[in-house]
Amino acid sequence: MRTDTRKPDQARPVEILTGVLKTAEGSALIKVGNTHVLCAASVEDTVPPFLRNSGKGWVTAEYSMLPRATAKRTPREVTKGRASGRTHEIQRLIGRSMRSVVDVTALGERTVVLDCDVIQADGGTRTASITGAFVALALALRQMVDFGVLRTVPLRDYVAATSVGLVRGIPMLDLCYEEDSQADVDMNVVMTGGGKFIEVQATAEHSPFDDGQMGQLVDLARDGIAHLVELQRKVTGL
Amino acid sequence: MRTDTRKPDQARPVEILTGVLKTAEGSALIKVGNTHVLCAASVEDTVPPFLRNSGKGWVTAEYSMLPRATAKRTPREVTKGRASGRTHEIQRLIGRSMRSVVDVTALGERTVVLDCDVIQADGGTRTASITGAFVALALALRQMVDFGVLRTVPLRDYVAATSVGLVRGIPMLDLCYEEDSQADVDMNVVMTGGGKFIEVQATAEHSPFDDGQMGQLVDLARDGIAHLVELQRKVTGL
Amino acid sequence: MRTDTRKPDQARPVEILTGVLKTAEGSALIKVGNTHVLCAASVEDTVPPFLRNSGKGWVTAEYSMLPRATAKRTPREVTKGRASGRTHEIQRLIGRSMRSVVDVTALGERTVVLDCDVIQADGGTRTASITGAFVALALALRQMVDFGVLRTVPLRDYVAATSVGLVRGIPMLDLCYEEDSQADVDMNVVMTGGGKFIEVQATAEHSPFDDGQMGQLVDLARDGIAHLVELQRKVTGL
Amino acid sequence: MRTDTRKPDQARPVEILTGVLKTAEGSALIKVGNTHVLCAASVEDTVPPFLRNSGKGWVTAEYSMLPRATAKRTPREVTKGRASGRTHEIQRLIGRSMRSVVDVTALGERTVVLDCDVIQADGGTRTASITGAFVALALALRQMVDFGVLRTVPLRDYVAATSVGLVRGIPMLDLCYEEDSQADVDMNVVMTGGGKFIEVQATAEHSPFDDGQMGQLVDLARDGIAHLVELQRKVTGL
Amino acid sequence: MRTDTRKPDQARPVEILTGVLKTAEGSALIKVGNTHVLCAASVEDTVPPFLRNSGKGWVTAEYSMLPRATAKRTPREVTKGRASGRTHEIQRLIGRSMRSVVDVTALGERTVVLDCDVIQADGGTRTASITGAFVALALALRQMVDFGVLRTVPLRDYVAATSVGLVRGIPMLDLCYEEDSQADVDMNVVMTGGGKFIEVQATAEHSPFDDGQMGQLVDLARDGIAHLVELQRKVTGL
Amino acid sequence: MRTDTRKPDQARPVEILTGVLKTAEGSALIKVGNTHVLCAASVEDTVPPFLRNSGKGWVTAEYSMLPRATAKRTPREVTKGRASGRTHEIQRLIGRSMRSVVDVTALGERTVVLDCDVIQADGGTRTASITGAFVALALALRQMVDFGVLRTVPLRDYVAATSVGLVRGIPMLDLCYEEDSQADVDMNVVMTGGGKFIEVQATAEHSPFDDGQMGQLVDLARDGIAHLVELQRKVTGL
Repeated sequence: MRTDTRKPDQARPVEILTGVLKTAEGSALIKVGNTHVLCAASVEDTVPPFLRNSGKGWVTAEYSMLPRATAKRTPREVTKGRASGRTHEIQRLIGRSMRSVVDVTALGERTVVLDCDVIQADGGTRTASITGAFVALALALRQMVDFGVLRTVPLRDYVAATSVGLVRGIPMLDLCYEEDSQADVDMNVVMTGGGKFIEVQATAEHSPFDDGQMGQLVDLARDGIAHLVELQRKVTGL
Repeated sequence: MRTDTRKPDQARPVEILTGVLKTAEGSALIKVGNTHVLCAASVEDTVPPFLRNSGKGWVTAEYSMLPRATAKRTPREVTKGRASGRTHEIQRLIGRSMRSVVDVTALGERTVVLDCDVIQADGGTRTASITGAFVALALALRQMVDFGVLRTVPLRDYVAATSVGLVRGIPMLDLCYEEDSQADVDMNVVMTGGGKFIEVQATAEHSPFDDGQMGQLVDLARDGIAHLVELQRKVTGL
Repeated sequence: MRTDTRKPDQARPVEILTGVLKTAEGSALIKVGNTHVLCAASVEDTVPPFLRNSGKGWVTAEYSMLPRATAKRTPREVTKGRASGRTHEIQRLIGRSMRSVVDVTALGERTVVLDCDVIQADGGTRTASITGAFVALALALRQMVDFGVLRTVPLRDYVAATSVGLVRGIPMLDLCYEEDSQADVDMNVVMTGGGKFIEVQATAEHSPFDDGQMGQLVDLARDGIAHLVELQRKVTGL
Repeated sequence: MRTDTRKPDQARPVEILTGVLKTAEGSALIKVGNTHVLCAASVEDTVPPFLRNSGKGWVTAEYSMLPRATAKRTPREVTKGRASGRTHEIQRLIGRSMRSVVDVTALGERTVVLDCDVIQADGGTRTASITGAFVALALALRQMVDFGVLRTVPLRDYVAATSVGLVRGIPMLDLCYEEDSQADVDMNVVMTGGGKFIEVQATAEHSPFDDGQMGQLVDLARDGIAHLVELQRKVTGL
Repeated sequence: MRTDTRKPDQARPVEILTGVLKTAEGSALIKVGNTHVLCAASVEDTVPPFLRNSGKGWVTAEYSMLPRATAKRTPREVTKGRASGRTHEIQRLIGRSMRSVVDVTALGERTVVLDCDVIQADGGTRTASITGAFVALALALRQMVDFGVLRTVPLRDYVAATSVGLVRGIPMLDLCYEEDSQADVDMNVVMTGGGKFIEVQATAEHSPFDDGQMGQLVDLARDGIAHLVELQRKVTGL
Repeated sequence: MRTDTRKPDQARPVEILTGVLKTAEGSALIKVGNTHVLCAASVEDTVPPFLRNSGKGWVTAEYSMLPRATAKRTPREVTKGRASGRTHEIQRLIGRSMRSVVDVTALGERTVVLDCDVIQADGGTRTASITGAFVALALALRQMVDFGVLRTVPLRDYVAATSVGLVRGIPMLDLCYEEDSQADVDMNVVMTGGGKFIEVQATAEHSPFDDGQMGQLVDLARDGIAHLVELQRKVTGL
């Protein structure tokens, strides 16, 4: 049995609140069980140096955890003077995932920065960040259409993510923190609304895995992501 | 007239939600108008080196703003590798304010860290942090009493804070961001529940001020703080 | 009685030597008892980005202590890679104080940097820095008039500062280090030559204070500052 | 056709020189085409804090590129004061890969640090680092057996890695730099000698991919890795 | 006798391999006994700000040791966030030495960066770096002549360097690590092909030295450097 | 002729004031022409890790320039987060020079830190620092004898330093800033009271030099240092 009585193929309840920040062009608070991430989209009229005069836009992401998102307080990264390797890895992943569905030419020479700040953490913060960041991004882009800055929303598809894993030999969907720390294999999957892969990251923490196990995990993830995309569709109204 | 139609001596509506984080010993989300600060209290079983074997505890604070708390995105301090002077100044102020009412001997050799993270900013973030941090602190200490770790709540009094200022010559209570940026004199006042001063910081941004003006501002602050303490009393149940 | 036999309302002997650096546009060595601060004014032909093409100038300050200014050697901040929160707080205070009396439009698009380096420390280094920095600033500005760069000295008033405090219940003027570390309330006051407030920072270290005590401290500070301004008048010849 | 006339399923020529450093417990210079990585294994008699008194060892890795490994000089990371996110990501991957086959209990409370320094870069530096680091690790562990420090080599299997990708729609093995920068999908696969997965990282740079494409890429990688393991077997003599 | 049976005036065998990096404009791997340094020359079309529009070029150097160049692993400087004082001292020395023979006007507004990366260290890494860097520099400059970018190789002379020292009272040439750590006096000498001094750095580690001893050391160094220049002449073909 | 009408073999007037800091165990303000350096000696009861339980002491130095020591303001190193290569080089030189005459066994497990802070700079700040630091060191050690902590002053000799150089072909003693920046060869010499070398650092800035020129420079330095040692003898009373 799972620590919170779910069935192996059952995801945690998900809630996405939109427009939670008056200050941001797009924002969403996503709650995946006890994992809560505040996602804000900021539109800036500049692009990184390598894109200047290219006519193309850019989408990037930053990720952070509030110190008391965790059961034991985690020191702020600013006190060490640098973001950890884990933080860099996650914000690169979020950025890549968003860029995979944005039509950067239609966006024009603008940057959308997606800030994903974890308010409370219980496993799956990076996949919740991706699912929530997409909503904040979509809302910011839709607002640009509403304001006449863009003609159409420059998105080719939806993007959502979930984690799956082998826990005591059983493939499970949407691991909470306790399950994640016991998993033999941990996999994060990012997919489009159309069910194609954007990113697959599978790691054998304790024992290597075979093709069959990989297939089972991918199938679980596909189902989980389909439900998340449905929710994104509802809250973004796209 | 004030930018949001308030009267000069009228504070913004204040709301304090408690227990908002499952992960923290004490937590409060304080909303002072559009300024929202999430305050978390963490109790740790260590003290800084200068207090080891003294039998005394310590209370400290950290302060940060989410990048999109502001109308224009503010880069994270971790990307510059260090907290700004303003951040240091504010977290020192919050820490001193909390320590002024804690009986550190009754607390014993423990540290309470108060994390004040500004979710949305519209002026007065440092004073809202003080008022909210006190609630998180009180709840964490009360929980230690409930759990039998402490006999009584080691607090000598309440602490709350507000800002006042001279805007176009008129003394005003609880400045929002727009007023704050136009103020001739800006004053932050921290007081006890008993109406005594813990900290007074008055700064003439544009033109110096005299005794009479200082008196008017202090009186406004006293009234504003009295109402905040009343609210603290309700939500902490102390 | 006070540690150095002074009366409660008696300041330490003050000496201000001018022109102590051949290299600087303006310089002053201020000695307030055993607190010695070397203040240098540098005039630069640039302004911070937010003032470019505004026609307005800027005044800023940096503060540092030599490692052996203190009875026990203090490590250099460069070895930690960053200035402390205390240093930032002090240099922001000095800068604000100077700007409060400078006519930045008359100064034109120039920056005056005031370097306050504490050679020997015995309490009150920030207030001595303000009083000394004003002299270095005034001398640098006067030299600009002498050299025909400016028509008149762009200063609206004098600025000086002192510390006062409640020590064992008694209001005292100009605390030395030992008194400062025992004080219940510690207050730094910055005033103009005309006797108006520029900055008031009062902190209850141990027990909160009331209106009456605040009034007594402010009165002591006013008298102390009046004498400092008189001395500034003499040495600057303005 | 491929940029260097290889067939899609053809890897570049690989050479592994062992014992290239007199100073290290184990060392290997791996050449995968024009990608050259120097791998050194250092055995230290300490473990990270979280393993102290656990009886278990640790394996970690560091990765760096010499500035002129690239066709255009890359500034050293030390001049920016920190390793990039990419560097952190790669060294975490190498470390995890090595740990997946080490019997940390048999290793005892020791740390093996694997330094992977890229001398010349032409794509696939992270997978070459993994393949080479395993050889350096195995040689260092075998030396410990030879010296009587360990009874048997505490390795459960071989580990090697390669990159595969979809370039202009065609699945290709072992991408060189030019191919890598044009790839639609880029996949790094780490496998054991027994043909099981340790890590799969697939990223759609330009367009998402489906199950069928993922299967083709995984098959190509499996073949490539089998040949690398054969070579590892030869040079380590295990 | 010397630790490796050499005579006091006998240098270690020296080998210089050229063109070892396909990626660099000029490169050399110099082996002085067990000290191996990889030197790469990079030509860039910019100059530091102080030379812009001067028509003159610049030559600079960076120096680093791979962590396992030493018998005991040395942590990377990037993990401390900064290069050590020793590293700065050495790279400034290499840069000055190269600039002393380059005709910067004939070079034109270009910068040559010399990267000296120590692969294996056994004493004398800074002098080996100078001798090897000159070869990489000469090859890069010759290539620019071959490519028609420059008319003649803008070098006025050769530059090479060696270390000498007083070990147990005996003047010795080309100290290995063990000798270096026992030396009473340690001297690094940089000379031109014409036998003139570019740099002399003599340090009494344990006991001061007199004119006669300095003369003996300088004579030893002159002989050693003459042989190194001969080898440079051969491999550069200038 | 020299910029300040001195003869080539004439040093600038030197003054050494002792006991200038009440706070330090030993202190000296040395004025070499317009170069003024404040030197403070701090005695600490600890040693660096590599000397613990060795019974031996340590002497180290730190060097810094006040921002307005120079004719054009130099930014503080703390604002860049690190000391420059030049600073590291100088403080290593001062430390080595002091250690060469201290009997570290007689000193016992203590560290003397010598802080050399340049108040005003006009060339030769590193050599003035050495000459002044020796005085501060000697005074601190003598005080330890006076206080009965040490039996005898643990110094084997005096140490002083000066700069010499070839300026327009003429060997000159004690270069001021303007001469230093025009010099073809720049040499810093550190010697004992007994006239032996502790350190010789000669650098050809523009054109290499020969044995004869080195001899002339060394002779000039010897005479200059002899006078400095005489002055040290007077002011230390050793």
